Amino acid sequence: MEEHSNRSLVKESMAKIRLKVVEFPGKTKKVAQDDPRRIVHSVKVGIAITLVSLFYYFDPLYVGFGNSAMWALLTVVFVFEFSVGATLGKGLNRGLATFLAGTLGFGAHCLASLPGDKFQPILLGIFVFILATTVSFLRFFPRMKARYDYGLLIFILTFCMISVSGYRDEKVLEMAHKRVSTILIGGFTALFVCVFIFPVWAGDDLHNLAAKNLEKLATFLQGFGDEYFTKPSERESNKASLQGYKSILNSKKSEESLVNSARWEPRHGRFKYRHPWKQYLKIGSLTRQCAYRVEALNGCLYSDASPETCGKFRETCTELCSELGKAMKELASAIKTMSPPSSHRAHVARAKDAAGKLNSLLKIGLHKDIDTMEILAVATVASLLLDVLACTEKISASIHELASLAHFKDGKPDSDKSETSAAKF
Amino acid sequence: MEEHSNRSLVKESMAKIRLKVVEFPGKTKKVAQDDPRRIVHSVKVGIAITLVSLFYYFDPLYVGFGNSAMWALLTVVFVFEFSVGATLGKGLNRGLATFLAGTLGFGAHCLASLPGDKFQPILLGIFVFILATTVSFLRFFPRMKARYDYGLLIFILTFCMISVSGYRDEKVLEMAHKRVSTILIGGFTALFVCVFIFPVWAGDDLHNLAAKNLEKLATFLQGFGDEYFTKPSERESNKASLQGYKSILNSKKSEESLVNSARWEPRHGRFKYRHPWKQYLKIGSLTRQCAYRVEALNGCLYSDASPETCGKFRETCTELCSELGKAMKELASAIKTMSPPSSHRAHVARAKDAAGKLNSLLKIGLHKDIDTMEILAVATVASLLLDVLACTEKISASIHELASLAHFKDGKPDSDKSETSAAKF
Repeated sequence: MEEHSNRSLVKESMAKIRLKVVEFPGKTKKVAQDDPRRIVHSVKVGIAITLVSLFYYFDPLYVGFGNSAMWALLTVVFVFEFSVGATLGKGLNRGLATFLAGTLGFGAHCLASLPGDKFQPILLGIFVFILATTVSFLRFFPRMKARYDYGLLIFILTFCMISVSGYRDEKVLEMAHKRVSTILIGGFTALFVCVFIFPVWAGDDLHNLAAKNLEKLATFLQGFGDEYFTKPSERESNKASLQGYKSILNSKKSEESLVNSARWEPRHGRFKYRHPWKQYLKIGSLTRQCAYRVEALNGCLYSDASPETCGKFRETCTELCSELGKAMKELASAIKTMSPPSSHRAHVARAKDAAGKLNSLLKIGLHKDIDTMEILAVATVASLLLDVLACTEKISASIHELASLAHFKDGKPDSDKSETSAAKF
Repeated sequence: MEEHSNRSLVKESMAKIRLKVVEFPGKTKKVAQDDPRRIVHSVKVGIAITLVSLFYYFDPLYVGFGNSAMWALLTVVFVFEFSVGATLGKGLNRGLATFLAGTLGFGAHCLASLPGDKFQPILLGIFVFILATTVSFLRFFPRMKARYDYGLLIFILTFCMISVSGYRDEKVLEMAHKRVSTILIGGFTALFVCVFIFPVWAGDDLHNLAAKNLEKLATFLQGFGDEYFTKPSERESNKASLQGYKSILNSKKSEESLVNSARWEPRHGRFKYRHPWKQYLKIGSLTRQCAYRVEALNGCLYSDASPETCGKFRETCTELCSELGKAMKELASAIKTMSPPSSHRAHVARAKDAAGKLNSLLKIGLHKDIDTMEILAVATVASLLLDVLACTEKISASIHELASLAHFKDGKPDSDKSETSAAKF
């Protein structure tokens, strides 16, 4: 019995492994198609690591650094990230932390050797304990976590290494010097490859994400009216296309990490130094507010009480949705073209008209013979759409704020500056 | 003019720094109070690092490993995480990746040295490039990213180090052996301190989070009815206490990382080996669905059309909310006590009664003289509450599933096993 179940367990896992092998090419294709830059990134990592490992092959290079060359390798592997901002952030974190901790570690080493050989290990142990404990606690501060987490880790590591191995190795300064220079070489190699071979800017991604999320909401709103007033039997066609907004609901963390990366980036492309990246968090948060309402609307879509017969509401309701969708699209394109939003106003005004009309239709409907359940269903949709309208106005205000903070120019992005800025880095 | 603005800039940053220094003690207190285990964790990191640095102080230990002792330090710093699961996951990742990559790297080293000295660097370079590119691409696979990201990084690092430094150092095997043993020592030190000094189990946190989130929803629902039917002038009192649910909206990422950590953990406390951790993702996702509806309800709370005068709906609506809240509380306590949920059923039934009553009240109300805008507002609230009711039933079903998967016992958790399991690890 035992053996039988064991055999079936083996069979099961064999089948699972086989399935995974069969699925692998398809998954690989999907990962690559979702974002072709991933392939480029992988090749870039390969190039950077191969470049750094040249250290070992050429005698003149190897003689200078010896075994410390491995720190260059280590730095490239840990610092190289997908976007320029993230790589810069990690590189600066690593460089700064190594420098500070190296200095402090050397100080601790000197201080601990003052009272004599007996007390040196005890003093060193106390220093290491206090520093490791304090810095570990600092890592829990939300702001530290967001921007300096990696640096704090490297700080602990370098401090301990320099101060403690000083106990064994008399050439502390030489060791520290070698480490710092190989880490600098590794960091610059990573940065060089990251910036000059098809760079991926976190700022670009963040900017495009803000526009894309608004477009997703627009797609839903433009499709919702038709979908809602279509008979359930005739649907199913564009159901999937409406669900794009779902990714917005959980976009907070990835948005925050993009903002953190973007803030490390120098001016590039259309973005100047000190571009108001934090404003994107505000726009993102309002977009999510709107997405929550849209999620509730989506719930109405597949409820049983679908008002196919409410022909009277159909036109106004569809118009309201469609105008809201158009306004959202205009806002998205304002972000894309980096111009102050203005063309959405007409759509918002028309949406307001439609909302007013819908309200009075509902009032009239209430006193007539239409099935009350259906009225109530339409009333819910109407009320949620009013919420979406309010959200749209807030989003528009926050985009206006972005436009004024970043000095968006009317009509066209200020292209005269964008051409030189890439070379400026 | 320039100088003046510079001076004011300096003044500004001085003021900013001063503000940060003044705020620091308060912030520290808050970080510690939010989760006192953070202090314990920091001390644990200090202990582990101090333990590992003992290597340098005692001659018999240092003679064996020499400078490789730093790998133990490095391992502790990078592997030590807040929860046991995360530490175990990173430790296993590191250990396994080092072992595999070490073997493969040694193989590459041998293979590359076959055709002679001239071709060795070229062959090694090709190997390193191919491996680094492939593994970097693998890191984009969502499943790999979630569970093996750190391991893949270490894999690249170790492979390159072993294969390339083999070009310089003839004692590849000895080096690899030293590295593996120091990494094992570092990993075990981290794990030992993490598990035996006030361990933090990711599984516990995940389990409690699921219960706590349901409780937050319950608090909102129980407070909502009263708040909604109170005059705006008399509110403001418990407004803040209602907003606890907001943290649920963005809980997806942290839930996923807890599940990933929990899956590495051995049986502990009330949780057996192969506890269905993934089911918590399902419960969490349904809880978020419900939170989106609650967010929409919250939007109704502060809208202008507050139906203070709709005395007729007040009682039924408040009852519906309160029963929903009670049901949610019972579900939360079922998770907490690890017993199959049952006592929530009465509340769900009563909520359904109240929903039916509310519907008929609305129907009657429609044909009377009550202000239509207010009816529509109440109708929206009612419809959202019906959505919440549907969500509650789905959540209840998913908790039932959890109860059957994890063999929850009625009445009490199976305490006879929980006592021995901690020692089992």
